[in-house]
Amino acid sequence: MVVSASAGNGASGSAARRASEENMRSMVDKVSAFIFDCDGVIWRGDSVIDGVPETLDMLRAMDKRLVFVTNNSTKSRAGYLGKFTSLGLNVSAEEIYSSSYAAAAYLESIDFPTDKKVYVVGEVGIQEELDLKGIAHIGGPADADKKISLKPGFALPHDPDVGAVVVGFDRNINYFKIQTAQLCISENPGCLFIATNLDAKTHLTDAQEWAGNGAMVGAIKGAVKRDPIVVGKPAEFMLANIATQFGLHRNQICMVGDRLDTDILFGQQGGLSTMLVLSGVTTEAALLHPENGIHPDFYMSQLSDLLSIKAAPVAV
Amino acid sequence: MVVSASAGNGASGSAARRASEENMRSMVDKVSAFIFDCDGVIWRGDSVIDGVPETLDMLRAMDKRLVFVTNNSTKSRAGYLGKFTSLGLNVSAEEIYSSSYAAAAYLESIDFPTDKKVYVVGEVGIQEELDLKGIAHIGGPADADKKISLKPGFALPHDPDVGAVVVGFDRNINYFKIQTAQLCISENPGCLFIATNLDAKTHLTDAQEWAGNGAMVGAIKGAVKRDPIVVGKPAEFMLANIATQFGLHRNQICMVGDRLDTDILFGQQGGLSTMLVLSGVTTEAALLHPENGIHPDFYMSQLSDLLSIKAAPVAV
Repeated sequence: MVVSASAGNGASGSAARRASEENMRSMVDKVSAFIFDCDGVIWRGDSVIDGVPETLDMLRAMDKRLVFVTNNSTKSRAGYLGKFTSLGLNVSAEEIYSSSYAAAAYLESIDFPTDKKVYVVGEVGIQEELDLKGIAHIGGPADADKKISLKPGFALPHDPDVGAVVVGFDRNINYFKIQTAQLCISENPGCLFIATNLDAKTHLTDAQEWAGNGAMVGAIKGAVKRDPIVVGKPAEFMLANIATQFGLHRNQICMVGDRLDTDILFGQQGGLSTMLVLSGVTTEAALLHPENGIHPDFYMSQLSDLLSIKAAPVAV
Repeated sequence: MVVSASAGNGASGSAARRASEENMRSMVDKVSAFIFDCDGVIWRGDSVIDGVPETLDMLRAMDKRLVFVTNNSTKSRAGYLGKFTSLGLNVSAEEIYSSSYAAAAYLESIDFPTDKKVYVVGEVGIQEELDLKGIAHIGGPADADKKISLKPGFALPHDPDVGAVVVGFDRNINYFKIQTAQLCISENPGCLFIATNLDAKTHLTDAQEWAGNGAMVGAIKGAVKRDPIVVGKPAEFMLANIATQFGLHRNQICMVGDRLDTDILFGQQGGLSTMLVLSGVTTEAALLHPENGIHPDFYMSQLSDLLSIKAAPVAV
């Protein structure tokens, strides 16, 4: 799969290079951790990408720290583990960094007051992660079927103890939730407005593109006229929190992703090494197009190209 | 109610002046039409503001054209008439310019193809106005309770003949509507994305502020990453369409409103004369504050201040 590299040129901003075996070996030697985007890198829809389990096993055998990031907030880390296991991937919940976890970790990082609670627009993943951090919460799936019966003079009550509204993807978004979130953010002094991510599209099924959490956040933003704090990709918080949690320096980390404008940009803005795989949404033609201004350090067809460094004969 | 005017100074950009009887007479002589914002000018919530019916009668007796604009899209013009009638106001449906009507008028103005249809996110007002223009539509209240049952490989079907998505305030917003709107806008070539308005808040009841159509538009914008065409206040289309429809020149029209950043700015940007009333959200202190940069031609306590020009003795 690996095509010979063009003449080495490490200058920042240069066009991306297809990784040679030497490039890959040098990268793997240099970094102590890999952050992987999942969809398009580890799996496509419900199928693991060819050679991924062996590649992860090889990196583990080399004592590399592996972190799997996802902007999916509908599941907790523990909930998301099932997807890895079902695909035959040997991963622990602690290696998964979901945007639902990021929301809870953000609140923990700012010492969210214990007498305050969170109003959740989103599904069970956010609730489970808040529970694990001991943060009180209301809303979420319990408000899925709530409707507002209007009569003259009616005011929808809202809890004055809500100190943060966390908005994640929510297939049961409704006006009750939008209005409650709006009231908490607008009327509770200091109430935070936190978005797990702003992704326009999400992958409910592979058959079409589905409106993502950009829709839920957009609804509340359109009513409160305020920008949210974003904790998932490509927010700086997620990267800073991963580095702190695993005791890593930025220059020890390589970001591996399939999207230039999210994964690779996220890595570069955070001071990481970057590798693009062509097994997801980005084609080689798009990467090499003169109008593309985002260049990973290296690119390869798919993650398992890395296996070539294992197969290479050892010098005697 | 009318306080003596400061020394006359008609220079553009000067501080607003409280209208003297002479100012008001001069304004009424000069213009042949008045565009009124409703809430805070004509009524507050469910009560007509003191003296408004008599003032409107006086202006009609002077052969002035009266137009009542509202960003409320949940009712058609005919539907909105009931509110005027119930408050004892003598108004015809043709004098009401709602954002639901604006959406239909916009589609008419661009010769929306007869073989295309509209997907409606919104309530019955938009549908009724589209019916009156003979424009086919789907969605709206019929999609209020629709849910998406996911299974692997499922794709939500959408109608390829949808040539425009019109988004108005919708208390029954849900993920089915958001995803259908997203699919039509993203996948139907040339499909328009039209917002009746972008108001962050609306007046469902007077007891609190309610999330407005900014929420519904924000949801779809967050999924399609495109800005909508806005047809209601403060969009230029509404003003241009009113002027055309009633055969008016801009310099013959006076905009009367209670909000500086919407009504007065809307009037000024459109080349109209402007009058602010203090019977709504703007206080005299806010108007005269040095940091306020939006100055109507004149201001008065409430619309009925205009009655002083009727009561004045005729010169003999």
